[in-house]
Amino acid sequence: MTYQRVALIGLGLIASSMAHAMRAGGLAGEIVGFAKSAETRAVALDLFCDRVTESAAEAVQGADLVVLCVPVGAMGVIAAEIGPHLKQGAVITDVGSVKQAVVDAVAPHLGPGVHFIPGHPMAGTEYSGPRSGFAALFQNRWWLLTPPEGCDAEALARLRLMIEAMGAKVDTMDVAHHDLVVAVVSHVPHAIAYTMVGVADHMRRVSQSEVIKYSAAGFRDFTRIAASDPVMWRDVFLTNKDAVLDILGRFSEELFTLQRAIRMGDGEYLHAYFTRTREIRRGIIEAGQDTAAPDFGRAVPPAKGG
Amino acid sequence: MTYQRVALIGLGLIASSMAHAMRAGGLAGEIVGFAKSAETRAVALDLFCDRVTESAAEAVQGADLVVLCVPVGAMGVIAAEIGPHLKQGAVITDVGSVKQAVVDAVAPHLGPGVHFIPGHPMAGTEYSGPRSGFAALFQNRWWLLTPPEGCDAEALARLRLMIEAMGAKVDTMDVAHHDLVVAVVSHVPHAIAYTMVGVADHMRRVSQSEVIKYSAAGFRDFTRIAASDPVMWRDVFLTNKDAVLDILGRFSEELFTLQRAIRMGDGEYLHAYFTRTREIRRGIIEAGQDTAAPDFGRAVPPAKGG
Repeated sequence: MTYQRVALIGLGLIASSMAHAMRAGGLAGEIVGFAKSAETRAVALDLFCDRVTESAAEAVQGADLVVLCVPVGAMGVIAAEIGPHLKQGAVITDVGSVKQAVVDAVAPHLGPGVHFIPGHPMAGTEYSGPRSGFAALFQNRWWLLTPPEGCDAEALARLRLMIEAMGAKVDTMDVAHHDLVVAVVSHVPHAIAYTMVGVADHMRRVSQSEVIKYSAAGFRDFTRIAASDPVMWRDVFLTNKDAVLDILGRFSEELFTLQRAIRMGDGEYLHAYFTRTREIRRGIIEAGQDTAAPDFGRAVPPAKGG
Repeated sequence: MTYQRVALIGLGLIASSMAHAMRAGGLAGEIVGFAKSAETRAVALDLFCDRVTESAAEAVQGADLVVLCVPVGAMGVIAAEIGPHLKQGAVITDVGSVKQAVVDAVAPHLGPGVHFIPGHPMAGTEYSGPRSGFAALFQNRWWLLTPPEGCDAEALARLRLMIEAMGAKVDTMDVAHHDLVVAVVSHVPHAIAYTMVGVADHMRRVSQSEVIKYSAAGFRDFTRIAASDPVMWRDVFLTNKDAVLDILGRFSEELFTLQRAIRMGDGEYLHAYFTRTREIRRGIIEAGQDTAAPDFGRAVPPAKGG
């Protein structure tokens, strides 16, 4: 057992997956949960929490580990509420996709006697809510921690142990670098996927039913990430604005260069460009971050009319 | 048996998958193959062809169905070579990803006694070459045909029968509409994926190893399609230039609108936009074009160090 009592604030995909993983591994003595919605609390009590409370302040009482699993935009309000009720020596972490905004919102509300170690599990599916969690979500996935300077070594080591026991791999980095890395590998890819889906939605000459029918040709890979939780992504773009705008600017420049090569009919440029991008894909497979099976190892979908 | 003799010109992923599917279904009396590379011919003879020839002209002799499976940019040269050697009444089709360019390149070389019915199987993986084919590639996938006006009804019906027997679903449309549809669902998504991978490749402050390590956060979905065959994609962009530039233009406008909302901190706009894109994803799952399993039903990748 890593922590005697764990409090999960916000009970969606990440919190429910953590609870399932902690239960499977016997990592927590008691898992207490809080969510705004009474319905969510009821589902959580049924599926993965030992106890749920009607306020966040109540949930964190006596907890050795508090995990903030609410959207990034809601972190500040929650921190203000729980700050006075935290146990001395407790570890506070979060699972937000950006870190500077979370640090700015949360840190001012925490007293000196607790250890705030922001975190970001890089795992997810396109589903959300308390029924969407499963214990294996973090298996072999990265979980980034951004411990502040002078962070208590024992508190960090214990949190790392817990995360690794849930199957994830831990890396630590500073807050600013974290926000830039995720802008590249996650936030801008999502912005682009949303945009491509938006373009398809606006077409007049190509019907939406055609887009859907023929999506296997590439488009559907964009729609998976474009189906993620709208509130979470709104907050991501509002709170990691600088890094996202930086990378989006680079993306536009790069796209215009490709577009110009297409317009000019520059076959040599296109071939060389497309050859280079293959290498990164190979790197990802070699690093064990994706399957090498054709088409992601997708099962052949069931036959349907149309 | 649908055709007595089938000639496959070009022996990569699509041709080898067709041969496997035709053999599995007993659809062809004899499968004859030609490829430029002697090594490819040897592999094809070993794995899926009854006979290979040292020229395309020789391969098509006496064939009832000729399938051009070479890159779009090579179609014209091949058509000029085989034109005089085609059997009267033969059906000629192709598997190119664009259709107007193929029609322009191929049609002038065909005599009046043969039936040219351009085609486009919307199936593929990120692998290429004669060893990459498998019989189930076309299962439940669309195969678009663009028969010319006045096309022989019996020739079309027979080709359709063959394609359906390989597991695919057939739709027919005119050439210009085809090229616009595929620009939306395939060509522009690929251009964008290539570009995003290119941006990641150019970053200085974020290392390539970081991009690879953390790619599961969204980026890796782009790399699958960015790993496709560079020659094929060069030809696609050179030959479907007008439709691709049209859609890329719309994409840039849409991206700039999203970028502006991020810069302005317009949370309402972002939330509404991200909510709309969810619907298209749901449509794709309901149409049976993808799995609803989280994360595409990817198996958890094997644990690896690092």
